[in-house]
Amino acid sequence: MLEERIAREATVIAPDVLRVDMFLNHMIDTDLLGELGREFYRLFGGDAITKILTVEASGIAIACAAASYFRVPVLFAKKGRSNKTLDADVYSSEIHSFTKDVTTGISVARRFLPADDRVLVIDDFLAHGSAVRGLCDIIGQSGAALAGVGIAIEKGFQPGGAVLREQGIRLESLAIIESMDGGEIRFSR
Amino acid sequence: MLEERIAREATVIAPDVLRVDMFLNHMIDTDLLGELGREFYRLFGGDAITKILTVEASGIAIACAAASYFRVPVLFAKKGRSNKTLDADVYSSEIHSFTKDVTTGISVARRFLPADDRVLVIDDFLAHGSAVRGLCDIIGQSGAALAGVGIAIEKGFQPGGAVLREQGIRLESLAIIESMDGGEIRFSR
Repeated sequence: MLEERIAREATVIAPDVLRVDMFLNHMIDTDLLGELGREFYRLFGGDAITKILTVEASGIAIACAAASYFRVPVLFAKKGRSNKTLDADVYSSEIHSFTKDVTTGISVARRFLPADDRVLVIDDFLAHGSAVRGLCDIIGQSGAALAGVGIAIEKGFQPGGAVLREQGIRLESLAIIESMDGGEIRFSR
Repeated sequence: MLEERIAREATVIAPDVLRVDMFLNHMIDTDLLGELGREFYRLFGGDAITKILTVEASGIAIACAAASYFRVPVLFAKKGRSNKTLDADVYSSEIHSFTKDVTTGISVARRFLPADDRVLVIDDFLAHGSAVRGLCDIIGQSGAALAGVGIAIEKGFQPGGAVLREQGIRLESLAIIESMDGGEIRFSR
């Protein structure tokens, strides 16, 4: 279902940039999102997950869609400098967006990530893997267990997925794009 | 239910700043969010809504929770400079966060907000009303109809709500805080 939507509606707007803002990260199709959430639950539902961790902003919707099946809280890492509404007592890391060419600090209040949590990381995209690495770094700092990583769209031609799998992390990507050369999107099977 | 959660878990961390990051805008209780979404549907479900508009980041979760009842897409305005993954062809406005003391541009791709849309604006907080005004400004630019505004927590002692109601905009706030002087939270009834 996700591959069909990508094939039909997504646009390759630069050699490595896929625009899916018509259903995933600007306008959101909540029915589709519900199906993606259900699929993450099928994949990780037996894994005693106690929390879903993502990063603002575009990861929030898909993490919440998954969480409504798992019936666990979502925790989203905040970007940028801490502000008055966030605890001073945080775990922090850094992520680099190659699409936007910018490095951002991310942080999570310590009290929301106790060491006995069993965490599923969810995000919309996996490319170079910087966001997921930052989130895993924060989980490592907290002493919580990383149960796995669930991604909507993995760019299989970029190194993030391979690096995570080599580290023995359980990674489940709902659609893996093998190439999008010349604007033609091909999926791995 | 929301008032109970606020009374039990929220903290007043400055005379006008309420921290609800344990269930709404850092960690998210998706069961509670589902109930809030259902309540927005009870209030606006007969109003022929075709789209829900919010602004990243903390509005996304509650807008998606509502949209799953309305079965309409969520559109979230992006903050800051436009980037490679967003259309160049946007409606733009500005919002000011008094909590963070920062003014930010927001934008929405024109093609996702056609003039025949009937839009419900959803956000987590209403205080000075700057975010809602920015979203209403964008709806005005598009020619779409503003059906109403749904807010989780309104700070009734700040002017945003009164201004919107004076303009004849239908505003429904699920919890209205009348005062939080001395850290004691009182709701309007």
